[in-house]
Amino acid sequence: MKQLLLATAALLSSPALAADTAALRDAALKDDLAWEITETLTTEIGPRPAAGEAEARARDWAVKKLNALGFANVRIETFDMPAWERGAETAEIISPFPQRLVLAALGNSGATPSAGITAEVVAFDGLQALEAAPAAQVAGKIVFVNHAMAATQDGSAYGPFGQIRRKGPSVASQKGAAAIVIRSIGTDHHRNPHTGVQVWAEGVKPIPAAALTLPDADQLARIFKRGKPVTMHLTLTPRSVGTRQSGNVIAEVPGREKDAGIVLIGGHLDSWDQGTGAIDDAAGVAITTAAAKRIMDAGKPLRTIRLVWFGAEEVGLFGGNAYRDRHRTEKHAVAAESDFGADRVWRFQTNVSATSAPVVTPKLSAALNPLGIAFGGRNGDAGGSDISVMTAIGVPTLELSQDGTRYFDLHHTPDDTLDKVDPEQLRQNVAAWTAMLSVVANDATELGPIDPPAAAH
Amino acid sequence: MKQLLLATAALLSSPALAADTAALRDAALKDDLAWEITETLTTEIGPRPAAGEAEARARDWAVKKLNALGFANVRIETFDMPAWERGAETAEIISPFPQRLVLAALGNSGATPSAGITAEVVAFDGLQALEAAPAAQVAGKIVFVNHAMAATQDGSAYGPFGQIRRKGPSVASQKGAAAIVIRSIGTDHHRNPHTGVQVWAEGVKPIPAAALTLPDADQLARIFKRGKPVTMHLTLTPRSVGTRQSGNVIAEVPGREKDAGIVLIGGHLDSWDQGTGAIDDAAGVAITTAAAKRIMDAGKPLRTIRLVWFGAEEVGLFGGNAYRDRHRTEKHAVAAESDFGADRVWRFQTNVSATSAPVVTPKLSAALNPLGIAFGGRNGDAGGSDISVMTAIGVPTLELSQDGTRYFDLHHTPDDTLDKVDPEQLRQNVAAWTAMLSVVANDATELGPIDPPAAAH
Repeated sequence: MKQLLLATAALLSSPALAADTAALRDAALKDDLAWEITETLTTEIGPRPAAGEAEARARDWAVKKLNALGFANVRIETFDMPAWERGAETAEIISPFPQRLVLAALGNSGATPSAGITAEVVAFDGLQALEAAPAAQVAGKIVFVNHAMAATQDGSAYGPFGQIRRKGPSVASQKGAAAIVIRSIGTDHHRNPHTGVQVWAEGVKPIPAAALTLPDADQLARIFKRGKPVTMHLTLTPRSVGTRQSGNVIAEVPGREKDAGIVLIGGHLDSWDQGTGAIDDAAGVAITTAAAKRIMDAGKPLRTIRLVWFGAEEVGLFGGNAYRDRHRTEKHAVAAESDFGADRVWRFQTNVSATSAPVVTPKLSAALNPLGIAFGGRNGDAGGSDISVMTAIGVPTLELSQDGTRYFDLHHTPDDTLDKVDPEQLRQNVAAWTAMLSVVANDATELGPIDPPAAAH
Repeated sequence: MKQLLLATAALLSSPALAADTAALRDAALKDDLAWEITETLTTEIGPRPAAGEAEARARDWAVKKLNALGFANVRIETFDMPAWERGAETAEIISPFPQRLVLAALGNSGATPSAGITAEVVAFDGLQALEAAPAAQVAGKIVFVNHAMAATQDGSAYGPFGQIRRKGPSVASQKGAAAIVIRSIGTDHHRNPHTGVQVWAEGVKPIPAAALTLPDADQLARIFKRGKPVTMHLTLTPRSVGTRQSGNVIAEVPGREKDAGIVLIGGHLDSWDQGTGAIDDAAGVAITTAAAKRIMDAGKPLRTIRLVWFGAEEVGLFGGNAYRDRHRTEKHAVAAESDFGADRVWRFQTNVSATSAPVVTPKLSAALNPLGIAFGGRNGDAGGSDISVMTAIGVPTLELSQDGTRYFDLHHTPDDTLDKVDPEQLRQNVAAWTAMLSVVANDATELGPIDPPAAAH
């Protein structure tokens, strides 16, 4: 009730702007641009691995498209980065029950010889069990880490369960493991493995590291339950291919007041290599672009909106870091990213100063509540991966939280394809972003500095 | 109403037997044996391609298991057959939008050279369009056949749409195509291709033939909509490996009256090579075995129940044909097969004589209705693939129709794994088969000869 009263107060305080916001928001529910961008990127480019030639083609397409849409200052800001490429990847149980398993190498995985390795498998239920194991139990073996991640609407299971992928390979290597295969960090029941990045801890020797599909991990766990020694033949031949170029594509909607700061929005252009990156993250660049276009077409906003299609997010936020390094001295009023699929927005969160929160929250609630979007609180984690590096330098952030219930069914798998995007939910996203931008790009309230400053995550 | 009256009459006519049937049926709703068999076959053997070493291991396991369960006359009846093995299988669009596609060779596919072939792709919406095309439009090209199969509860879409897989490769070869890729004969939205058998028409030269996943077929169709010539690089290296041995595993519940004929039931032991054959068809052998075991344990039935775990069904009913050739002179009272997954039985159909139909239908209705199973009519197609060859020699058949709504999401894909089997629905299947067997194995009504004789299909 209190929130509704505040919202009403906000509407009364600037009725013309609130009316504009409502009109823009409701018109966006008929948006076709976000679908067009998502469809084109996934169809005409397909997979867009970081620092690869398809990502470069996607940047070139993006520049043409953003210019054609009428954005200002469209450009590519390149950066160099280490690149890694998938190779062969096969696994089979040799004993006790010979059969093939389906898996995918994790980012930065080491390689087996081309003929593969054969070793006994040792199984753990989670990262802690692996961490607690004596090296003698692991040395020379293939480590299998199982887990029980379940789907959650807010995606909160990804943080803790994702540690198995992020840290497991280094822990296994430190204990002398020959290789590691984890249960995919996912929540589906299909034979599609979930890849994802992991970075070797300082001084740790890379070993072959891969993710089994969920059904294959179930199978391996059932085989272990029989109590017999399990031997696996594993072939993974990915390789590091040295330094290559990636880049961020940037476009702007110039504002009336330079001193009011930049509203930084976007998603990431790169994708993992096995799907076409529809939900991760063609949809994100499409949603934010469609919303920015609507604000632009409605007349010059107070603040400049800067749209970034980040490069090389998947493999370590290279685009986000490059952007921060290059633009850290510019005044950023607020930042927000769309990188959690294309299902409906159900919540918004803020990471703004304690002073500005009571001012901006009711305005955003008034703009977003009609779309079924509730205020979820102030949260230092609100944002998105590429802009997380901006919070570390004090930039406030906003988050339009998408329903993630099925996100980890598809995330980082070959199954991340256009058919997983629901055009109606995509339109609701565009409407939410349009409403949010209409508020924050046209309101001079200082949202930062964030207090206390959130750590990068 | 008429049916209910008939059912009541049947119950009154043999109240003791009907009571036994009801008790056996209801006890079967707590069955664990079918799950145990399904779990063990899929876990300890895994994929069981026809005439391969895993199918042989499965036969050996089956003999041990069926003996341990107390069945009589457990044996393997071997037969020889031509075998075929999958090789490498990759495809990529070369132009206009370079990207990889996911596919799987169809059974008996020809091979490309190991380096693959590159050719223009020509697209058709269905088999008729391909059949109508002049050879000049197809010669030297890779044919793509799309379609719009939708899921149906009775699986009836598989007949007509399956013709694209069964006939399309021969039609394409006859017109001089370099290769053919079809949209998988399936109804899901995952990156798992649906393989399946096709047999080259007399005198037709084998060409490479494969099925794209549904999302990949959607992608290729979208690419074609751009109106530019499409070039594909395709590598398929399957091979025929000559004559190998397969076999049927047979077990019996001896009956009291030899002259009453055999009740032939079963499923097939082989599976396609990429999944573990859980729904196709570990569940089928498990359901029928569990039901036969329950009848056996209740006391000697009137008729002998013969349980067959058929070999080599997937690649052309080799097991069914071998059984028919070997046993055609024995009196078969009736035959039934479970080979449509593990979801609940919702209907039963009969292919019995016009004389016996009014006698047996009400008995079966009375036994099955409490499980939510309705009579679906007399139907010359009632049965299952392996026993279809028995109808051609006059053997009557019964069908317990499983809900096939999601069957073609999984059929012949890597996704046919144990997690797709719902233990509760599996139990309902066992109860249905137990009830059906209790009726037909203990009733002397002659169900044949079928009139008119149904053609093999």
